[in-house]
Amino acid sequence: MHQEQRERAEEFLKSKGIERGLFSSPATVRWLTGFAPPIQLGPSVFEGGPALVWYDGGHWTLMVLDSYVPAAGAFGDEPNCQVVSYLGYTIEQSLASTEHLSSLLLHTVAQSQIKSGKLGIEVQSLPVNLWNVLTVDVPHTVERVAIDGWCEPLRMVKTAEELQKLRDNFALTDIGHAAARRAVHIGAREIDVWTAIHSAIEQAAGQRVPMGNDCIVGHRPANIGGSPGDLKIEPNDSVIVDLSTLLHGYWSDSCATYYANELTSKQIEMHRTAEIALQVGMNMIRPGVVAREIDQKLRDLIREAGYPVYPHHSGHGVGVTGHEAPRIVPYSTEVLQAGMVIMLEPGIYFPGETGVRLEDALLVTSDGAEILTHHDKSLPAYE
Amino acid sequence: MHQEQRERAEEFLKSKGIERGLFSSPATVRWLTGFAPPIQLGPSVFEGGPALVWYDGGHWTLMVLDSYVPAAGAFGDEPNCQVVSYLGYTIEQSLASTEHLSSLLLHTVAQSQIKSGKLGIEVQSLPVNLWNVLTVDVPHTVERVAIDGWCEPLRMVKTAEELQKLRDNFALTDIGHAAARRAVHIGAREIDVWTAIHSAIEQAAGQRVPMGNDCIVGHRPANIGGSPGDLKIEPNDSVIVDLSTLLHGYWSDSCATYYANELTSKQIEMHRTAEIALQVGMNMIRPGVVAREIDQKLRDLIREAGYPVYPHHSGHGVGVTGHEAPRIVPYSTEVLQAGMVIMLEPGIYFPGETGVRLEDALLVTSDGAEILTHHDKSLPAYE
Repeated sequence: MHQEQRERAEEFLKSKGIERGLFSSPATVRWLTGFAPPIQLGPSVFEGGPALVWYDGGHWTLMVLDSYVPAAGAFGDEPNCQVVSYLGYTIEQSLASTEHLSSLLLHTVAQSQIKSGKLGIEVQSLPVNLWNVLTVDVPHTVERVAIDGWCEPLRMVKTAEELQKLRDNFALTDIGHAAARRAVHIGAREIDVWTAIHSAIEQAAGQRVPMGNDCIVGHRPANIGGSPGDLKIEPNDSVIVDLSTLLHGYWSDSCATYYANELTSKQIEMHRTAEIALQVGMNMIRPGVVAREIDQKLRDLIREAGYPVYPHHSGHGVGVTGHEAPRIVPYSTEVLQAGMVIMLEPGIYFPGETGVRLEDALLVTSDGAEILTHHDKSLPAYE
Repeated sequence: MHQEQRERAEEFLKSKGIERGLFSSPATVRWLTGFAPPIQLGPSVFEGGPALVWYDGGHWTLMVLDSYVPAAGAFGDEPNCQVVSYLGYTIEQSLASTEHLSSLLLHTVAQSQIKSGKLGIEVQSLPVNLWNVLTVDVPHTVERVAIDGWCEPLRMVKTAEELQKLRDNFALTDIGHAAARRAVHIGAREIDVWTAIHSAIEQAAGQRVPMGNDCIVGHRPANIGGSPGDLKIEPNDSVIVDLSTLLHGYWSDSCATYYANELTSKQIEMHRTAEIALQVGMNMIRPGVVAREIDQKLRDLIREAGYPVYPHHSGHGVGVTGHEAPRIVPYSTEVLQAGMVIMLEPGIYFPGETGVRLEDALLVTSDGAEILTHHDKSLPAYE
């Protein structure tokens, strides 16, 4: 599980002369280990801090809250990997999980008996009290190196294992979009469409599935994105449904636009333009193309069709986060490589009136792209 | 908004000789300001760190990601309060929100021109890089004092404003339980019951509502709690439904037990015993009673009825976290005070066979308790 990720990280650290590392970013921890605790309720009040990964010359140690051991368990079966845990909640004594995590980190680091060399640390997600632990057993002769963000470029090309997780996930958004298409009708509220989608996805998965992002009617003043509310779908409304799901610790994404009734001629033109933009973008996807060239092409196309150019990105990567490199934005000189998974999502918006956005996921292949999303984004036929 | 909370915090800090403070715990920030960003998808990848509150001699500054300003806005209208923000995501330049938050903190602290005195800091949720900012503009003559956990006792007694938020919230769990009672039948899966509940709650609220906790059939090997799965409700199954919702930044809680069909005589006895235990606990709630006395009484009652004593707490407080002081546990010497809101939740479990848990929320009043939950926990009548 995630062995290829650890090999990439190890190779990169070695190339920088770093023999040991402490990882604290949830995204990095998930990418290195596959450990994916529940997120829907925010961090557990029983956690003493973030889950941590300690790397020491080929050995990996994942430190988690005791109640997360079942979720982390599989990692401990990997070669050169172990899971260690600290006491969280008990009815026997006052909550002291912060102290317990500190002790566990101290114990883990002490075993490495560091005398010299470089220690890489993700500091931007490491709380001060855990940083202080490192001063106890790591002499000042050891050089601390901040390694925040170092793993993000390594995460861009997906492994076969990650691709399977993503495929399972995109199958869920396909199901969600089918439910959305059925649920959109005049008089239904945004939240009614949303609950129909979320129920369909969770019932298909047979478990809870965290879900984002947007479910909004065209007549909203800010109609690009937003959480569903109690606004009713009115005649001639568009409904943008942008869905991401979290399964196996990986995020999907997807978007389609549905309509209250027969489309106006303006909406038909807008929808067709978005379809063309998405298709043109897909056709550009292959190894070697520069991210900003795709972005520029899509914006030009929308502008030349006579529409205001969307203010958001043209796309982005997905993985252990829902939004990551490579970003398809005006400034990005990132070069696409086989194995990247990229969202493309051109849109056209007339605030308070109507809008359209269509989005697919593309796997960059050796000579083009494979579409990973299979939801119906076509113009509906109204009788 | 939340002025009484800030007055309590201010008074407490002053009593400790502390004139300035930096708060970084999400629970404290929410309690002091009412700022409650969405949580269902985990922390935003565009955030540069946690939302922060800077306190300087009667003035309060909330530091948030730019896209959270609408959610934080009302706080800025309060006397002696302001909201400041930093750049998050833009399509114009690379993501640098960590640096932007650091700069904002540096700028905010610099304005205070600290020369001496004590500076209180919540360090356990403060990332190292933000701690380092404080070394730039705060001379070493200023004494740093760790104030983690200091606000939790101040949070126990709820303000009138908080009580209203909690009442709105408990009304949602009542709706969820009504949906659960309708959805439980032989052949339905745990996840089917769950989606029926969540849909009913979100449709009633007209917006997304984060929801926990348990929805599990009695024939599960571990049948005390857990996330809903694809297990089907079988004949003679019990179904424990424990619901918490997050509304206005506050958590509710509640539990009831439903049944697949006519109860066995064992289940009837268990259910009645849980009802009695809950009632006995409620009758004990009043100012002056010690938390562990309630806990002991409920455990004794279950034991004396001939059942195994539940391994979990007898109850706990709720507020900006779903589980907080006062905890109704064997070790707690906490004394109840008017204005506290306490959950009581006795249960009886036979793993892999059947279980029951009933839970209500109680507001401690001047001479007893007011029940805040109004869901039907009674034995169902089967024809």
